[in-house]
Amino acid sequence: MIESPAPQVSTIGSDQDAALQATLVELIDLSLQTKQAHWNVVGPMFAPVHAFLDALTDEYRDWYDTVAERLTALGVAPDGRSATVAGSTPLPPLPAGPIEDGAALAAFDERVTLVAANVRRRAEALADQDIATQDVLIEILRGLEKQRWMLRAHVLR
Amino acid sequence: MIESPAPQVSTIGSDQDAALQATLVELIDLSLQTKQAHWNVVGPMFAPVHAFLDALTDEYRDWYDTVAERLTALGVAPDGRSATVAGSTPLPPLPAGPIEDGAALAAFDERVTLVAANVRRRAEALADQDIATQDVLIEILRGLEKQRWMLRAHVLR
Amino acid sequence: MIESPAPQVSTIGSDQDAALQATLVELIDLSLQTKQAHWNVVGPMFAPVHAFLDALTDEYRDWYDTVAERLTALGVAPDGRSATVAGSTPLPPLPAGPIEDGAALAAFDERVTLVAANVRRRAEALADQDIATQDVLIEILRGLEKQRWMLRAHVLR
Amino acid sequence: MIESPAPQVSTIGSDQDAALQATLVELIDLSLQTKQAHWNVVGPMFAPVHAFLDALTDEYRDWYDTVAERLTALGVAPDGRSATVAGSTPLPPLPAGPIEDGAALAAFDERVTLVAANVRRRAEALADQDIATQDVLIEILRGLEKQRWMLRAHVLR
Amino acid sequence: MIESPAPQVSTIGSDQDAALQATLVELIDLSLQTKQAHWNVVGPMFAPVHAFLDALTDEYRDWYDTVAERLTALGVAPDGRSATVAGSTPLPPLPAGPIEDGAALAAFDERVTLVAANVRRRAEALADQDIATQDVLIEILRGLEKQRWMLRAHVLR
Amino acid sequence: MIESPAPQVSTIGSDQDAALQATLVELIDLSLQTKQAHWNVVGPMFAPVHAFLDALTDEYRDWYDTVAERLTALGVAPDGRSATVAGSTPLPPLPAGPIEDGAALAAFDERVTLVAANVRRRAEALADQDIATQDVLIEILRGLEKQRWMLRAHVLR
Amino acid sequence: MIESPAPQVSTIGSDQDAALQATLVELIDLSLQTKQAHWNVVGPMFAPVHAFLDALTDEYRDWYDTVAERLTALGVAPDGRSATVAGSTPLPPLPAGPIEDGAALAAFDERVTLVAANVRRRAEALADQDIATQDVLIEILRGLEKQRWMLRAHVLR
Amino acid sequence: MIESPAPQVSTIGSDQDAALQATLVELIDLSLQTKQAHWNVVGPMFAPVHAFLDALTDEYRDWYDTVAERLTALGVAPDGRSATVAGSTPLPPLPAGPIEDGAALAAFDERVTLVAANVRRRAEALADQDIATQDVLIEILRGLEKQRWMLRAHVLR
Amino acid sequence: MIESPAPQVSTIGSDQDAALQATLVELIDLSLQTKQAHWNVVGPMFAPVHAFLDALTDEYRDWYDTVAERLTALGVAPDGRSATVAGSTPLPPLPAGPIEDGAALAAFDERVTLVAANVRRRAEALADQDIATQDVLIEILRGLEKQRWMLRAHVLR
Amino acid sequence: MIESPAPQVSTIGSDQDAALQATLVELIDLSLQTKQAHWNVVGPMFAPVHAFLDALTDEYRDWYDTVAERLTALGVAPDGRSATVAGSTPLPPLPAGPIEDGAALAAFDERVTLVAANVRRRAEALADQDIATQDVLIEILRGLEKQRWMLRAHVLR
Amino acid sequence: MIESPAPQVSTIGSDQDAALQATLVELIDLSLQTKQAHWNVVGPMFAPVHAFLDALTDEYRDWYDTVAERLTALGVAPDGRSATVAGSTPLPPLPAGPIEDGAALAAFDERVTLVAANVRRRAEALADQDIATQDVLIEILRGLEKQRWMLRAHVLR
Amino acid sequence: MIESPAPQVSTIGSDQDAALQATLVELIDLSLQTKQAHWNVVGPMFAPVHAFLDALTDEYRDWYDTVAERLTALGVAPDGRSATVAGSTPLPPLPAGPIEDGAALAAFDERVTLVAANVRRRAEALADQDIATQDVLIEILRGLEKQRWMLRAHVLR
Repeated sequence: MIESPAPQVSTIGSDQDAALQATLVELIDLSLQTKQAHWNVVGPMFAPVHAFLDALTDEYRDWYDTVAERLTALGVAPDGRSATVAGSTPLPPLPAGPIEDGAALAAFDERVTLVAANVRRRAEALADQDIATQDVLIEILRGLEKQRWMLRAHVLR
Repeated sequence: MIESPAPQVSTIGSDQDAALQATLVELIDLSLQTKQAHWNVVGPMFAPVHAFLDALTDEYRDWYDTVAERLTALGVAPDGRSATVAGSTPLPPLPAGPIEDGAALAAFDERVTLVAANVRRRAEALADQDIATQDVLIEILRGLEKQRWMLRAHVLR
Repeated sequence: MIESPAPQVSTIGSDQDAALQATLVELIDLSLQTKQAHWNVVGPMFAPVHAFLDALTDEYRDWYDTVAERLTALGVAPDGRSATVAGSTPLPPLPAGPIEDGAALAAFDERVTLVAANVRRRAEALADQDIATQDVLIEILRGLEKQRWMLRAHVLR
Repeated sequence: MIESPAPQVSTIGSDQDAALQATLVELIDLSLQTKQAHWNVVGPMFAPVHAFLDALTDEYRDWYDTVAERLTALGVAPDGRSATVAGSTPLPPLPAGPIEDGAALAAFDERVTLVAANVRRRAEALADQDIATQDVLIEILRGLEKQRWMLRAHVLR
Repeated sequence: MIESPAPQVSTIGSDQDAALQATLVELIDLSLQTKQAHWNVVGPMFAPVHAFLDALTDEYRDWYDTVAERLTALGVAPDGRSATVAGSTPLPPLPAGPIEDGAALAAFDERVTLVAANVRRRAEALADQDIATQDVLIEILRGLEKQRWMLRAHVLR
Repeated sequence: MIESPAPQVSTIGSDQDAALQATLVELIDLSLQTKQAHWNVVGPMFAPVHAFLDALTDEYRDWYDTVAERLTALGVAPDGRSATVAGSTPLPPLPAGPIEDGAALAAFDERVTLVAANVRRRAEALADQDIATQDVLIEILRGLEKQRWMLRAHVLR
Repeated sequence: MIESPAPQVSTIGSDQDAALQATLVELIDLSLQTKQAHWNVVGPMFAPVHAFLDALTDEYRDWYDTVAERLTALGVAPDGRSATVAGSTPLPPLPAGPIEDGAALAAFDERVTLVAANVRRRAEALADQDIATQDVLIEILRGLEKQRWMLRAHVLR
Repeated sequence: MIESPAPQVSTIGSDQDAALQATLVELIDLSLQTKQAHWNVVGPMFAPVHAFLDALTDEYRDWYDTVAERLTALGVAPDGRSATVAGSTPLPPLPAGPIEDGAALAAFDERVTLVAANVRRRAEALADQDIATQDVLIEILRGLEKQRWMLRAHVLR
Repeated sequence: MIESPAPQVSTIGSDQDAALQATLVELIDLSLQTKQAHWNVVGPMFAPVHAFLDALTDEYRDWYDTVAERLTALGVAPDGRSATVAGSTPLPPLPAGPIEDGAALAAFDERVTLVAANVRRRAEALADQDIATQDVLIEILRGLEKQRWMLRAHVLR
Repeated sequence: MIESPAPQVSTIGSDQDAALQATLVELIDLSLQTKQAHWNVVGPMFAPVHAFLDALTDEYRDWYDTVAERLTALGVAPDGRSATVAGSTPLPPLPAGPIEDGAALAAFDERVTLVAANVRRRAEALADQDIATQDVLIEILRGLEKQRWMLRAHVLR
Repeated sequence: MIESPAPQVSTIGSDQDAALQATLVELIDLSLQTKQAHWNVVGPMFAPVHAFLDALTDEYRDWYDTVAERLTALGVAPDGRSATVAGSTPLPPLPAGPIEDGAALAAFDERVTLVAANVRRRAEALADQDIATQDVLIEILRGLEKQRWMLRAHVLR
Repeated sequence: MIESPAPQVSTIGSDQDAALQATLVELIDLSLQTKQAHWNVVGPMFAPVHAFLDALTDEYRDWYDTVAERLTALGVAPDGRSATVAGSTPLPPLPAGPIEDGAALAAFDERVTLVAANVRRRAEALADQDIATQDVLIEILRGLEKQRWMLRAHVLR
């Protein structure tokens, strides 16, 4: 008879489950924040920033789907409900109303930097636990750090 | 000299602004709830229900983008932030954890029925105010009532 | 507790249900008549008329699907069975056998004019009843009146 | 001088003309019946059955176009008018109103079995008459017998 | 015998015919002006403004085709000839030669605002006359008011 | 040890080899003749006839590739060289210079009728020899007889 | 230090600038005239002529974009404003109202012949001045002379 | 009442069932052998032979799906399990390890020749039994004999 | 002179070679088993299960190609021959004949769980040996564990 | 009144008409010869040479269409009939029957070299006559000389 | 016997060979410089400039492939090796490290102006030598001068 | 307040920055070398080797873009200038002029082996430093080792 290794995976998991759930919330909130800014951005750079924010939204949507489905693969129910997201997101909210183009980019530099740091820390902690989950997080980390470059490259230093 | 009619449009708008903002929140929350169910659904109908819920998510995302951009066209800033959505949505939350396929369909029948009724009431109220905004809401209403049929058609009565 | 507005919608509906069912029959019969003419047309204009009739068929098929699904959205069962179509269509049948290209275009000018007038009358009557159903009929009316122009434009007057 | 073999083909044809005309009527009626069921199906299997019935409709539309154009190739006018279809179809009509998912599948098992038997008999009879027309019918027969399998595979025996 | 409702439509029409013809001229002129600016724009925002103006041109071309074909559907000949456009457009001309990026956006904010106001007034006036023509104008109005937002969003206020 | 059935196939083949080679020549010549007419057609029906002739050319090119590769499958070298085509085609040449649209259609009615009769005779003769080669010819026969209908349907009788 | 050859190019240019500006006006006017005829054509050949005129419009739009961008490459501002087009086009206007299919083709034979002759003369004059601008005009000339053939091929002579 | 002809079909079938099951095994084994060679081929012709073997694999996969689904259409369960394939394939195995490009082509010439002969014999035997199953086998036979040509054409004789 | 590191890679490899070869066999057998079930599944869930099994087959085919080509990259010949697969697969065979939809899903839950556990163990063992091969296995592991979730989600617990 | 410059074009043309007609014949014959070799090539390089010859055929077909339509643009009837091609082609025929891969490439090196030289000579002669026709020939010349390189690159020198 | 004109072409060629080789080096270096700037650009215009530089890179890659293959068509070996490019490029290098958006555009204005001048001079010199090579250079010249406009249009003067 | 982890990342980085910069140079040089060989390859295998080398070029271009953008993500400016590539590449240059097909494959076997070894060594060294950068290098390593197999598989050993 074949024994299922899945329970083993799920007993490993309390740390990684929390890591994935936290990442899920952050990415959903990022996707809502980039949409919010996509609609409310103003300034001379409106057109390219408006388009860039939409591209970020698409990436967050893809990534949080991957994270949620990794949770299900571990036998854990993902929680992406609006109250959960609003209640547990570590991201500062965007201000209500119009947001200037440069301010929008700066806001996401701050937020992406925060999430990238979280994801890096979680990914590193998984090295000895679950290489498949770690691989999911590394893939997202590469994307976040690339976004951070593009956000910062708008600023002359 | 050309006088801008846009201020006129925006002074019309306090009722319709509220109608659009309320619709925006409901559609964003529907999109998060269908994603939540897409991940957590279980039962013999898993595969088609999982796919159907994703198709609903895509429609909500398209529709709330249209609603938000109609608000911007009226000179009003849409608010789709997670705290706003969680704080003002009239939709009952989904339960945490796995949800049976039939229960998921029933939950969305209830929610889509609610939102369709709201959108119909708002659209009818706009007839003498702003035909362009009304047209946006009618387009979404047609979609919601079609979804309601598909959700109900899963049930033998 | 959430009350379903759907029964309200369906009690509105006896007039509009009949309007949609009648439109469904007319569009299915138009689709069968344009296919019939697509196969049987003869004359120097064969190639473009043969292609044009197929494009009309495609439009009727799309439109009657929309009408039937609007009926289901209202909780009413559409009836598109061959006996229903044959028994209740108001359209004069095409003659059996080959049909000359000009005669085919004239036949559909007559039929499209008839159906457009019916759909216009039904759409106008729905203004105070159901704006979503009215919107479905206006969309089809725009298409029918465009077809009527193209059919008539083949004739020098 | 070149003598046309086409008259020869058409004099062969009285049996095969009838075979094709009968097949045309059966396939048009199948396409209307699958659309009817596509709209009216209810039950837990709604979504996949609704989609499957639409795929069947598409196949019938392709096939009856092929049959009608084979008739024209033989110099015979196809008759696909609604009164002809309703008056000469051998298929039992679907009941009016909603139809349960399992009942819909059973209804089409019965109808596809009937049409497949007719088409097989007609195809076999054409072996010594017109290999091109026979080839058209074999192509459709393969499709019908594949559909019959898929319909029956929904039932545990 | 079938009586044509088309003459009725055309007798309704003197006001709406003028409304459509005026809209046709404005949209053609907008399309020529956005192309003109697409070629002549200069400034740091050249690349996105150059691309955005081309997207506007595409929308005007689609819309004026729809308006012209609505006129034909009403039995009226559209007039989109260059002398007619130049002679009857209410839009101020663009200056000759290079145009700065910000000035280009401001110029189209002014022009789109003007045309949107005209189309809104015409659409509202048609409510009791021709719902199909009204629907054409509402569709364009939604687009124009969305463009106005995007043009204005380039400016910090 | 495995015995090759291929030699058997090739010894069957003297009749069928000739049938295929003759079909190859006829189809190549048809493709050159339809291109010739595609360039030289004149008359009020120029545009659709010009396009229709190009569609015929594409079908002949596909078909003669199939025939040539069937010859190679039988171990026989196809001969599609210009001198072979010109020297062995049974088709009357088109006249040099411009050709009226109706005359072009009539010319191909005559030629397609001739080739269809040849292909039918060859296909019937292969029934007891090589079912695979027969199947190639039946496929082409169906296409040729469909073309013949479309050519003739341009003529009122 | 690198010296810019561009000023040299622009000093060459007074003749070629005028040649390009004149071509720009002619092509914009052709595009408006073919659209005008696309909407207003009537007659038995309506469908293919209507489609053919649209294909011509697409070509003129592509070509005038190329011409305008060649002017910008030479440092000269193109002028495609409606008043400029209406005021400087050498093309006779189309008559207002419906135009018969044959008359439409004849009108464009006349106009395309005129523009092709102008473009040929301008292209030949540029041989010793600017080979890049000449190449733009030759490309358009090839297209115009091909259009002229297709227009004339509709007429039996 | 409608009598099902399907049992009749299945009683015909013992010979044809075996024919199809044998063909299924041969085609699955061919697909595994061409993949094996695709990975292990070496020699100067590596790149085109590697690609050609993959194209063969794709054809075998399509064909065996068709054969298996024809078995299901006859009410017979196809058996494509690895033990069945390994235990009943008549094909000689490929050697383990690298295989030279010319040797790979020769190996498949031998195997395709064998399977084509089997399929031809089975197809011919079905002429008086089931024309639909015969048609499936003829289609595959045409493909196999075309492959055989391409394999042999690599060899100078 | 450049020294090739490839031999080093291959001397590392005896463990990883075996790991890859074992994975190759398991994935090929899974692909044959899902195809077998794709054909033989019966039950009310036929349509979605039939489609889902085909999607699994496609994933196994992609993955075993990647594994086999990783073996070649290590200089080792992959062995995917039918006798090797049948002789070394650790997977229990599917039963012959029809298989109920729920039983099919359960069978693959068992098999995918087994293979995922094997691949996880192999991937973990490679951490200190070959990071490139490990990365191949992690990619497949992520896919297998996602499949396991989807299979299990069909069951209410 | 507008004077047609077209007669002028056609009186220029006797030399260029002959140049184009000769090019037309050469390109049609090249297309038939590459198809002939495509079918009859044998040798170890079969697969890539078979594919390369088909790519050449596609280029010749595109080019001769361009040449023929340039003739029509000049008011001259192109002659691409099989007897004309066979009777006036300057190309040596391919031998009947199979042709070795290297011999096929050498044969087309010889033929493409010949045609490229002819086209170059004709293009150079047109410089002072018709720049549009010259441009057609230069475009083809570039393609032929590129083909010549690819053919020769197969040979080690 | 056929004499090859190719040697003639190559003896013409010493000037043009050098012209093409120099153009090859310049275009490869431009492609590396635009990639370099694509990665290192910073400033408020980052997003559109980053994208624009990538579009330039794609054009240079296409063009230098065309130039290199023109050299091969002349029987001359192109040299695009990194040492050759670095050693013979006349373009000033970009500075190491980040580059501001405006500075990047200015840098390429300078470089494209230089290369366009070189290509124009080379193309003009080829008029009496090789019209095919000249045509290659004119095509690239048109592209370079269009790029120069777009680069300069970013600057208000 | 949010602290940026990015400086931490960049202080880790001196080793990895050098590793990435060295990989960037090697991949750019490989892309130039494969293009060089793509143009200059000669021999009987010309066509497939010419195509294969182009596919390699495409992979190098994708990979070096990924590497450069990883450097930017670390806050380090990539240097891909021609002088840097030529000055720091460890790859032996290709010889000038034509290169035989087998020699070209051998040359890239040597170069790809060298780069793969470098990338493997760098990737292994990053395990304890930056898992995101390591993941980039592993992805490229897998590709390089697959290319090495394909290059070597052309040789019989």
